[in-house]
Amino acid sequence: MNLKVVLYTLAKILKVEAILLVLPLIVSVIYKEDTFLSFLIPIAILLVIGFILEKTTKSDESIYAKEGLAIVGLAWIFLSIFGSLPFIISGEIPNVINAFFETVSGFTTTGATILEDVEVMSKGILFWRSFTHWIGGMGILVFILAFSSQQNSRNMFIMKAESPGHKVGKLVSRVKYTARILYLIYITLTIIEIVFLAFKMPIFDSIVHAFGTAGTGGFSIKNSSIAFYQSVYIETVITVFMILFGINFTLFYLIIIGNIKSVLKSEELKWYLGIIFIAILIIFFNTYNIYNSFNETLRHSSFQVASIITTTGYSSFNFNNWPGLSKTILIILMFIGACAGSTGGGMKISRIVIYFKIAIREIRQSIFPRQIRPITFEKKPIDELTRNGVTSYLTAYIFLFIIATLVISIEGKDLVTNFTAVAATINNIGPGLEIVGPMGNFSSFSNLSKITFSIVMLAGRLELFPILILFSPKLWIKK
Amino acid sequence: MNLKVVLYTLAKILKVEAILLVLPLIVSVIYKEDTFLSFLIPIAILLVIGFILEKTTKSDESIYAKEGLAIVGLAWIFLSIFGSLPFIISGEIPNVINAFFETVSGFTTTGATILEDVEVMSKGILFWRSFTHWIGGMGILVFILAFSSQQNSRNMFIMKAESPGHKVGKLVSRVKYTARILYLIYITLTIIEIVFLAFKMPIFDSIVHAFGTAGTGGFSIKNSSIAFYQSVYIETVITVFMILFGINFTLFYLIIIGNIKSVLKSEELKWYLGIIFIAILIIFFNTYNIYNSFNETLRHSSFQVASIITTTGYSSFNFNNWPGLSKTILIILMFIGACAGSTGGGMKISRIVIYFKIAIREIRQSIFPRQIRPITFEKKPIDELTRNGVTSYLTAYIFLFIIATLVISIEGKDLVTNFTAVAATINNIGPGLEIVGPMGNFSSFSNLSKITFSIVMLAGRLELFPILILFSPKLWIKK
Repeated sequence: MNLKVVLYTLAKILKVEAILLVLPLIVSVIYKEDTFLSFLIPIAILLVIGFILEKTTKSDESIYAKEGLAIVGLAWIFLSIFGSLPFIISGEIPNVINAFFETVSGFTTTGATILEDVEVMSKGILFWRSFTHWIGGMGILVFILAFSSQQNSRNMFIMKAESPGHKVGKLVSRVKYTARILYLIYITLTIIEIVFLAFKMPIFDSIVHAFGTAGTGGFSIKNSSIAFYQSVYIETVITVFMILFGINFTLFYLIIIGNIKSVLKSEELKWYLGIIFIAILIIFFNTYNIYNSFNETLRHSSFQVASIITTTGYSSFNFNNWPGLSKTILIILMFIGACAGSTGGGMKISRIVIYFKIAIREIRQSIFPRQIRPITFEKKPIDELTRNGVTSYLTAYIFLFIIATLVISIEGKDLVTNFTAVAATINNIGPGLEIVGPMGNFSSFSNLSKITFSIVMLAGRLELFPILILFSPKLWIKK
Repeated sequence: MNLKVVLYTLAKILKVEAILLVLPLIVSVIYKEDTFLSFLIPIAILLVIGFILEKTTKSDESIYAKEGLAIVGLAWIFLSIFGSLPFIISGEIPNVINAFFETVSGFTTTGATILEDVEVMSKGILFWRSFTHWIGGMGILVFILAFSSQQNSRNMFIMKAESPGHKVGKLVSRVKYTARILYLIYITLTIIEIVFLAFKMPIFDSIVHAFGTAGTGGFSIKNSSIAFYQSVYIETVITVFMILFGINFTLFYLIIIGNIKSVLKSEELKWYLGIIFIAILIIFFNTYNIYNSFNETLRHSSFQVASIITTTGYSSFNFNNWPGLSKTILIILMFIGACAGSTGGGMKISRIVIYFKIAIREIRQSIFPRQIRPITFEKKPIDELTRNGVTSYLTAYIFLFIIATLVISIEGKDLVTNFTAVAATINNIGPGLEIVGPMGNFSSFSNLSKITFSIVMLAGRLELFPILILFSPKLWIKK
């Protein structure tokens, strides 16, 4: 691996994080809080390290896939380490491992928290906590690419490694402009949601909840999450925006350039909306006798389905108390996740559809060997490369899942908590069931478990390989 | 599909089942039980139907993969329907669906029971119940092939469809002789176990428990399974034989022909024993403070690991009360299963190893694209066909698992029961956790769930496709 290039890119990222920390700094000034230094110190540290690193490693060499993966993996780890400093310095999350967990949970848009009482936190810290969702949702490296002057091939490797989904589609020929368009759509949608929410919420609340929705993160500033507001209006707005942020951003671009036809033809979109519809339908009938009202049942079933499939993790109701069938549906949605190219997590609709199609074809062929028919996704044939990518992803996913579950189960919590806690972190959702249910949190886990969850969240958000590659000794050996 | 050939083969199978039913008939005569007619009536029905069907469908046409799959799928369903008659006629399992479930559980070597009190049953019925394990373990069609005079290609398709594992190795050039050798090894090992057990058990008990071990089934004639005997000797014998019956029978053949070298080099065997060793080690340390004795801890941890990985399902201790880590290990072992070509269920060691190797290679290649290295299993390169077979199996498995879990969860039992009940049936183990734990049973499930479990057990034992193909409308359409 070309360590010089990797460090050089890292330096840039640290500098950008310094700039991003100015926003919560401003918030703490506005609200006249004493958390001023908690942001200023990290900013200073990041700038100093960033500048030194940049000067000593300046490099124009080109990179390959492995450097692209390593840059992204390392960048997210360092972002989280430095991003946890405000929590530690302010004393609001004094424990280093807790602060790291919370920051990773933020950047990876998981929304799992170790905080037992979030309502006592200062506004500046709460803002930073939710802002990490927004940064992590679209990706900080994609953000940097939008203003980068580097060559195209390097950017493509980085963008590939950071973006969710089995494949990264460039919207326009240059990666830089693609990144800019994506961020423009992202910012616009976020602002629209803030405006909608501001009708029924204080402006601060609407901003942080819009961050949580946009990044499909799920950190709330209320202990009972969205249920706190007891407002059908707020829940409806958030439901709609969660579903929107779970859609492939390429489709918004197509709408902007007037190509509505292609949007309507999108196979992934049809599956996404179809799964949402069926899931709401089943949960509606399964939970009807809890609410005994058409509107109430529809309200909670649609909110929870949207929240889980998009991997946001906001809650309008303690679904821990739902019947088994509904909980099983939610667990399945956790794994499916949102569309590729969205801010959502999980395995992604496209991957599951492709995987399913490959299997159907192979089963067919083993039974009826004389019929050979090509399989397509989004009207394009599924090639060998896509297939390998999808199957190797799934295996790596399963193995990571098993290992993480084993490590977590050492501390002896119940099986449902262990299983759903790993599912909630690897898929970047936030809440699981039982102890980590929508009204629970991750505070009672051991340090070993919290570190495991942090690795799992990072691996889940970056789709495994950028994190897994860091464990490969081969990467670190100098040739 | 060539229905005539399929029905012709079915006719033969029904006649063989009639012959097999003579054994429990003899048992009931020996013990002077009044269950005589419960076996005689099914024998008569099977012979009549068998002869009529055979006369009307006589056919020498050759078959293809799809007929091979359909024959096996239908054969097992009809075997189970007629095999449940003794339970119903004797009145010992009066409910038709319960009797069908119990018979499917027997033939598929699952060992899950709907009986709340097995000790009140008559000896003849208990013998038939355990004998289904023995028949199902090696496969009834393989049994028929051993004495068949039909052409080789037809036999190969049938053997492929019934035998566990990603690939069927012919030991000798003719399928017929391969089937005979397999059954010879099977019978010999079963007799040796009966002899060993007979030292400390009544002869009847030793026969039925040897059937349960040989088929890796797990039906016991005691409510508390092997724990009833409270004997270290019995548990040790059964542990050793469970592990033996989980080994690929090809290896026993190699030992017979003196090729010990190849046995020692077997990759699957190394993985199998390695996984068993590591699982025992972890569970040993995790459960040590329950028993506070080296011998006791080793006794229960090794028995339970052997019982679950070989998918037998006998219990020496209520592992429902073990700590979470040990239960998680057992759940993982449930899915891994035994070696290909053994009588055990689960996904099979070889499939998991191949799947893992494919994934590792693909991950490597996406990171280090210039290094291409071929992957091998058992010193042979893994070809495209093997790979497709393994991946399509896994996907079909996952989808069947999810659908079954959804159906089961309709009746509102807890998540751990639902999940482990499906795992215990699809992998042909028997006990799961909670309600279906080692001291529990499947009696409290609804009819819908019991039918679902029956389909899942059959699909699991026949490795999905022979059962799944029956749901394909294409199969039934006449061209």
